[in-house]
Amino acid sequence: MCRWMAYSGNPVPLETLLFNAQHNLIDQSMSSRSAETPTNGDGFGVGWYGPRQQPGLFRSIRPAWNDFNLRDLAAQIDSRLFLAHVRATSLATIQETNCHPFRHGRWLFVHNGEILEVEKLRRELLLAVDPALFGGIQGTTDSELMFHLALTFGLQDDPLPALARMAGLVERTGRAYGVNEPLWMTIGVSDGESIWAVRYASDGDAPTLYYSRDAKDLVELNPDIVRVLGEHARAIVSEPIGRFAEIWSEVPQGAAMHAKGGAIEVVPFSPSG
Amino acid sequence: MCRWMAYSGNPVPLETLLFNAQHNLIDQSMSSRSAETPTNGDGFGVGWYGPRQQPGLFRSIRPAWNDFNLRDLAAQIDSRLFLAHVRATSLATIQETNCHPFRHGRWLFVHNGEILEVEKLRRELLLAVDPALFGGIQGTTDSELMFHLALTFGLQDDPLPALARMAGLVERTGRAYGVNEPLWMTIGVSDGESIWAVRYASDGDAPTLYYSRDAKDLVELNPDIVRVLGEHARAIVSEPIGRFAEIWSEVPQGAAMHAKGGAIEVVPFSPSG
Amino acid sequence: MCRWMAYSGNPVPLETLLFNAQHNLIDQSMSSRSAETPTNGDGFGVGWYGPRQQPGLFRSIRPAWNDFNLRDLAAQIDSRLFLAHVRATSLATIQETNCHPFRHGRWLFVHNGEILEVEKLRRELLLAVDPALFGGIQGTTDSELMFHLALTFGLQDDPLPALARMAGLVERTGRAYGVNEPLWMTIGVSDGESIWAVRYASDGDAPTLYYSRDAKDLVELNPDIVRVLGEHARAIVSEPIGRFAEIWSEVPQGAAMHAKGGAIEVVPFSPSG
Amino acid sequence: MCRWMAYSGNPVPLETLLFNAQHNLIDQSMSSRSAETPTNGDGFGVGWYGPRQQPGLFRSIRPAWNDFNLRDLAAQIDSRLFLAHVRATSLATIQETNCHPFRHGRWLFVHNGEILEVEKLRRELLLAVDPALFGGIQGTTDSELMFHLALTFGLQDDPLPALARMAGLVERTGRAYGVNEPLWMTIGVSDGESIWAVRYASDGDAPTLYYSRDAKDLVELNPDIVRVLGEHARAIVSEPIGRFAEIWSEVPQGAAMHAKGGAIEVVPFSPSG
Repeated sequence: MCRWMAYSGNPVPLETLLFNAQHNLIDQSMSSRSAETPTNGDGFGVGWYGPRQQPGLFRSIRPAWNDFNLRDLAAQIDSRLFLAHVRATSLATIQETNCHPFRHGRWLFVHNGEILEVEKLRRELLLAVDPALFGGIQGTTDSELMFHLALTFGLQDDPLPALARMAGLVERTGRAYGVNEPLWMTIGVSDGESIWAVRYASDGDAPTLYYSRDAKDLVELNPDIVRVLGEHARAIVSEPIGRFAEIWSEVPQGAAMHAKGGAIEVVPFSPSG
Repeated sequence: MCRWMAYSGNPVPLETLLFNAQHNLIDQSMSSRSAETPTNGDGFGVGWYGPRQQPGLFRSIRPAWNDFNLRDLAAQIDSRLFLAHVRATSLATIQETNCHPFRHGRWLFVHNGEILEVEKLRRELLLAVDPALFGGIQGTTDSELMFHLALTFGLQDDPLPALARMAGLVERTGRAYGVNEPLWMTIGVSDGESIWAVRYASDGDAPTLYYSRDAKDLVELNPDIVRVLGEHARAIVSEPIGRFAEIWSEVPQGAAMHAKGGAIEVVPFSPSG
Repeated sequence: MCRWMAYSGNPVPLETLLFNAQHNLIDQSMSSRSAETPTNGDGFGVGWYGPRQQPGLFRSIRPAWNDFNLRDLAAQIDSRLFLAHVRATSLATIQETNCHPFRHGRWLFVHNGEILEVEKLRRELLLAVDPALFGGIQGTTDSELMFHLALTFGLQDDPLPALARMAGLVERTGRAYGVNEPLWMTIGVSDGESIWAVRYASDGDAPTLYYSRDAKDLVELNPDIVRVLGEHARAIVSEPIGRFAEIWSEVPQGAAMHAKGGAIEVVPFSPSG
Repeated sequence: MCRWMAYSGNPVPLETLLFNAQHNLIDQSMSSRSAETPTNGDGFGVGWYGPRQQPGLFRSIRPAWNDFNLRDLAAQIDSRLFLAHVRATSLATIQETNCHPFRHGRWLFVHNGEILEVEKLRRELLLAVDPALFGGIQGTTDSELMFHLALTFGLQDDPLPALARMAGLVERTGRAYGVNEPLWMTIGVSDGESIWAVRYASDGDAPTLYYSRDAKDLVELNPDIVRVLGEHARAIVSEPIGRFAEIWSEVPQGAAMHAKGGAIEVVPFSPSG
C-alpha cells in the first residue's frame, strides 16, 4: 500500500509539509503500522507546480528518507500546489518510471491501491488506451495505465466523468476475465489549479482518504508553519495522520472531492459505462 | 548504438573478457569513435550460464566502467557461456528493465540497432505478442519487444525461423505505417548451449558483426588468458576490436550464424512471412 | 540499528539463508519492531568466500528487498562462508562505501551498534590508524574506522586481542573527549576459515548476538534447506529470529565467540590497553 | 579530467546554459576529445543560489545526460549564480559525496585537476584541516580536502589568500613526501555574490580556464537565450567551447580572477607559506 498527499495554498517550500510537519509523509514512509506493508521504501515522487506551464517532477527509487537530493530540493523549491507519493509494492518493478506522480502535460496523477490480478487484465486495458497516448506509458504499473485510460476518456476536459469511465472499464474487463471486484483505489489528480480526489473500491472497501476542512485544522501539523500556508490552504492525504485524526474529514466510500482555492466539494462517485 | 559480445568456451571468470582483454567491452564503452554516439554510458548488463538451470543476470544503469559491484562479480563468477551488452541510447528510458540481456527461462537475448520510428509501430507489435508472454515485458525498448515477438514465433523451438518471422512482422508492420525500411539489427541469442547471431537490416546496411574462427585468434586479445579459454572457445562481437580487426571474421549482411562447441556455421538470413 | 548474519557450512546458494529461510534477513530488514529504527532500508551488503582468494563483495544502497541484482546473484552464487548486513542509520551518509561488510584482503567485517558521539572522536581515532592502512578507508562510518583500527592492532594475526585493543582505544579516546561510555557493538569478522564475533558495550548493554549450537537447530529456519547445509553448519545472527528464539544460544554481554568447522567456543571479551 | 562552469547574471533556468546552449556542459560530458579521459560519465553536480540563504545542491552518480531528474530540475529552477561540474575519474570512488560542487554554508567549490600521488599526502593534509571543520568532509576526493584546507585558512574571509595558503601547504607536503610538483588545478568558488576562479599548477601547466568578457560574447552560445541573461552576465568555463574558442578570454597560468556584477578582475596567483 502506498501513501500520498496533495497540497494547495500559499506557495511554500516543499519541505514545509514533506519534512517539517509532524507525522509528515517521509516519517510515515518509514513506520507504517500496517502488517502487510511494513514500510514504504520502494520509491518516492513529488510533482509540483512552479514557474513553468508544465509541473516539475522528481522521482527516485531510493527510500525518501535517505535521498540527499530530495532533502535539498524540498528546501529550495516553493510551490502553491503539489502532490507527493511514497511507494510500497511487491508487484511492479522498482524503477523511476513506476514512481508516482505520473505526468501528462499540465496534469499530475497519484494512486494508492491496485487493480487486483492486473496481470490478467493488463493487455486488454492497454488496448483501450488511445493510440496517440500509448507512447506516453513509460513504466509497468497499473496506476500509470489507469491514468492513461482516464486521459483517453477525457480527463483533461472533465476529470470526474473520465475517472468514472476508467473505473467502469476496469470493472467490466475484470468481470470478463473472472476478476469480479478488481478495483481498489484512492486517486489524486491536478491540473495545477484544482485537485480532484476519488475514493472507490469495487467491493466497497477502498483505502482511506482525508482532507482538511480549513487551514486552521492544519495548525495541528505544525503551529509554526500554518501561518505561511494561508487561509485557503488545504491538504488531502491518503492516511489519517498520527494522533490528529480528528482534524481530518474523511471522504466516504464511493465519493469524489474537488478542491480549488480553499473551496471543497464532495460528491458521490461510481463507475460508468 | 550499443555494443555486445558473446563468449562460449572453457569456464572463465567474466572479467577475463570483460575487463582483462585488450580493447575489452568496458574500455570500448568509454571510447566509441562514432560521432553519433560518443559513449556507451547508458547501462550495462551481463547474462551468464552458471550452476543453475536459469542463467544469472546483472544489469545496471551505471556506466559499466564505474560499477564496483560489476567489477567484483566479474572477478568471482565463472561461466562457460555469457552475453554482455553496453547501451547507448537517446530513445527508451534509462532503467534496468531496458538494459540487455533480456531473459526468458533459459534464454538470453541482446540487440544492437533499432526499429526506426518504433513509436509508430510499438502498439501494433505489442498486440502481436502472445498474451501468455505479454506480462514478461518489463521495459519499453524495441529490443525486448523483438525478443518477445521471436518467443511468440517459437524461438525456443527453432531460433532462426522465429527470428525471421519477427523480422518479417516488423517490416510488414513498418510498411503499413509508412516506415519502409524499419529494421536495423544485430542480435545475439542463447539457450546456454548454442549461440545464434543475426546481422540484418531492411536497407541492407546493418551494423557490424564479427566472430573468432579459432581460439588461436583470441590470443591477440590477451596472450595470458587464451590458454584458459580452451580450444573450442569462440567470441562473437558487435564491433571490430581495435587494431586486431584482421583476426575477426565478419558475418555478412543478411546472414545468421550458429556457434556450438567450437563449430560455427554461417547461413543466409531473410525475414519471412 | 543494523542487522547482520554470518554462515559457515556446506556451500549453498546465498539465497538459501538470505531469502528462503523463514524470518530471513531480508524480511527482517522490512519489519523491525524497534521503535527507534523502524526499517533497515539504508543499504545492504554481502561478502562471500567463493573460488578466489579474495572474498566477493556486493553492496547496494537500495533496500535489500527491492534489489533485482541481489536476488539474482543470491540464486547463482554458492558459498561455504558468508556475512550479510542490512543497514539503518541516521548518522553516516547512505552510500555504498558505507555499507557493510568492509573488506581488507581476505578479511571481512560487519558491525551493529555505534560509537556514541563519534563526531567528537573521529579525527583522533583516524590518526591512530596505521598510515599504510589509511588509504583503505573509503567511507565515513564508525564501523569501517573500527575495522581499520583492529587491522592496525593486528587483526590478521590474532583477531580477538586486536579487537580488544580497538575497543580499549575507543574507550580511552571517548573518555578524553568527555564521552564516558562510547562503545556499543556486536561485530562479525572472518578470514574465510573462521568466524569471530564479539558482543560488547561500554555500559554493559550491548545489542544482542546469537548463534546456532547445532545444524539441527537450523531446521526451524526451513526444513527443506537444512539437509543441504550439512552437519557442521553454523549461523550467527545479530537478532533473535521470530518465534524460534529458543533455538538460538545467546552470546553473553562482554563475550566473544569463535566458530570453525562446526566447533564453537565462547570466551570473555574486554577492552585492553 | 573534469569539466566545470560557473554563471552569474540575470536569473535564468539552469537548463538555459546546462542543456540549451550550443556545446553545453552536458554535451561536452559525452564527447571529450581528450585521449586519456574519453568521457565525463562519473557523476554530475550543480549548486545554485536561489531563494534561500544556503545554495541548493543536486549531485548524482548517473551520467548527466541520462538523469531525468536533472533535466526536470534544470527546467524548473531559476538562478542568478550557479556552478556545475561533470566528473571523470579513475581515482576516488564514484559516489555522490565525491561529486562537485562541495558546499559549506553559503559557499560552493568546484575543481578540475588533481593532487598527484594524493594517496601519499592525504593523511598529512587531513591533519591540517581545522578539527571543527573535519566532520564536514563526507567523501574521499582530493578536491573536497582542498576545499576544507582553504576553509581552514580563511576562505570565507578572504578567498584568494586562503586558496594560496592551501596551494602552498599541498606543495610543501608534496615535497616532504617526494612529490615535487603535486598540484594541478583550476578551481571555482562562490559565496553567492562573487565568483573566484584560479588556474595554477606546480609545473606551470595547469588545465585551461576561460571567461566571457561580455554578455555579447555569450550570444554565440545561443542567440535566443542571451537576451535573457542580461548585460552583466558572465560565464567561466574549464574548457574552450567548440568552434567559438575566440570569444573566450583565457585566464593565464598562475592567475586568479574575481567576477562580480559583470566586473572581472584577473590577478597573479601563487602559493603562499
